[in-house]
Amino acid sequence: MSAPARARPGPPTVEWDGRSLRVLDQTALPEFERVIELGSAAEVAAAIRRLAVRGAPLIGVVAGYGLAMGVARAPGDEAIEAAASVLRSARPTAANLGWAVERVRRAALSGPPAQRAAAARAEAETIEAENAADGVEMAGRAVELLAGARRLLTHCNTGELACGARGSALGVVLEMAERRPDLHVLVCETRPLLQGARLTTWELAREGISHELIVDGAAAGLIRGGEVDAVVVGFDRAAANGDVANKVGTYAHALAARAAGIPFVFAGPGSSIDPTVGSGDEIPIEERDPDEVRHAGGRLLAPPGTLCRNPAFDITPAELITALVTERGVARPVNPDTMATLAP
Amino acid sequence: MSAPARARPGPPTVEWDGRSLRVLDQTALPEFERVIELGSAAEVAAAIRRLAVRGAPLIGVVAGYGLAMGVARAPGDEAIEAAASVLRSARPTAANLGWAVERVRRAALSGPPAQRAAAARAEAETIEAENAADGVEMAGRAVELLAGARRLLTHCNTGELACGARGSALGVVLEMAERRPDLHVLVCETRPLLQGARLTTWELAREGISHELIVDGAAAGLIRGGEVDAVVVGFDRAAANGDVANKVGTYAHALAARAAGIPFVFAGPGSSIDPTVGSGDEIPIEERDPDEVRHAGGRLLAPPGTLCRNPAFDITPAELITALVTERGVARPVNPDTMATLAP
Repeated sequence: MSAPARARPGPPTVEWDGRSLRVLDQTALPEFERVIELGSAAEVAAAIRRLAVRGAPLIGVVAGYGLAMGVARAPGDEAIEAAASVLRSARPTAANLGWAVERVRRAALSGPPAQRAAAARAEAETIEAENAADGVEMAGRAVELLAGARRLLTHCNTGELACGARGSALGVVLEMAERRPDLHVLVCETRPLLQGARLTTWELAREGISHELIVDGAAAGLIRGGEVDAVVVGFDRAAANGDVANKVGTYAHALAARAAGIPFVFAGPGSSIDPTVGSGDEIPIEERDPDEVRHAGGRLLAPPGTLCRNPAFDITPAELITALVTERGVARPVNPDTMATLAP
Repeated sequence: MSAPARARPGPPTVEWDGRSLRVLDQTALPEFERVIELGSAAEVAAAIRRLAVRGAPLIGVVAGYGLAMGVARAPGDEAIEAAASVLRSARPTAANLGWAVERVRRAALSGPPAQRAAAARAEAETIEAENAADGVEMAGRAVELLAGARRLLTHCNTGELACGARGSALGVVLEMAERRPDLHVLVCETRPLLQGARLTTWELAREGISHELIVDGAAAGLIRGGEVDAVVVGFDRAAANGDVANKVGTYAHALAARAAGIPFVFAGPGSSIDPTVGSGDEIPIEERDPDEVRHAGGRLLAPPGTLCRNPAFDITPAELITALVTERGVARPVNPDTMATLAP
């Protein structure tokens, strides 16, 4: 039996009352904890589009409710397809968005119009419940691996704000903090978009978990200096051989962890494993807007016109990874055989 | 014979006409190339204090001229001591500042009042000339080591702005660019203070050298991806065993270079070797103001009150360093024996 959840001030990331949805507007964080009410599929799509709601798993949960609200308002075939289409197009590259919309759409269309609203609502609630249960399962498995660690280091934002429920890597941190109140977390700021500085610090403060913010370049030296017991991060995509793509900056932390002999653990949903990709070399690395690098805090810092490289991800090779954890189990060591046991 | 220096628009970092000093105001860069004229020791001290002039070697050069101007104005013993004291206190921790002031002070006091102004001016000019000659010597040695490299990666600001003359690691880059016009440089932005984004990009643009800016966390992945032939950085302090302290973020680049099998080279003045320190573990790491981490571009990005760690440096162990280059020679491999040949 785990310890009771910590009392936590402030609004939840997502709140569904059976008819409408309230979400935390992430564009206002960390300055303002602004809750917005979304009453239709179109309002949900707009919130996803302007990044008020972000993070692939969370987008899936919210989009499911968006379509359920659309079905409740207009249960005809044409109206359902139109609502699904509006939601899908909100962020075309988010895999969980299309997947969640499709689940709710099918559930709705499987019955006569009078039952469609209830069926869609039930499916959306199932998606949220499964997401939460998967997070608990994953965290439990990861906590066993990291039993001796008190001082963790993490990168980017992988908590409730990104994932709904308790998050992936940050869900592991929360679970560990419930078991040992002296847990301490070093949070990498995560340039260029500073998700660590803006969001992970805010989530840890909300949970009352001791933490300090560092620039990304400080992680390796602090690991070498013996100030970190384990590194825990989420992941965006894992290849069949166990190479992992995650937010840019992750690979350097893995090198430092290996050099210092401390565990380096990836935690994320099984749906992020892509068995069709053989190795990390086959994972295309998205190159994002150079203005993200030229600017910090909304201000241009480099000379105007400076050319930039802005890879959003990097690859951590399987041999540097102590373990990869999903809701289905643990790959340890990480290799093609252990990864095969986790693939969807 | 090296190729002719590139034509370069804009004002020099330091210009001495025998009577007064013009310096580039680095607080205005990269937005404005503002030149300020300094006509007295007090004005030089004020410019150093407000960081219009920064970088230990450059501070030494400018402080030398500052005292020479003081001696020209008032060659009495008491006036010279007062001017020296004002300059020394401008930035108490900059080693080169006290060293340069002491050289000019001694030169002045060694003769009768009528010859003091000339002696002080000559000594200040010697300091600048030696600094420039040392930079050329160092660059020549480093270029030989890196003959095959076309794509370099560097960190922080180690050019003329920091060092006077042509700089340490960036002086190596300039010398290489004169020999191969297709040279390309990846510039790490260098959080928290962004010296790479603000100053190194500006210096490379001024020299017409091809470059791209990256966030610090992107370096390791780009090195792993085969996009870098060698890493060249300056250094702040080297221990007798060859462990090196440099700007935070350096160590992760060294780990990535080793993993990819590319050279990792430190270049800096011999005066930065400290033979009284046995290893990197004995080098104290300065912890700076947490506001540097909480802010980027002058804006608070983390939740107010977020605790931070802000180590200014990290340690790269000798075994990861391909070579350490000073004006006196090259340590390669880097170990106690080779380091002893370079120590002052």
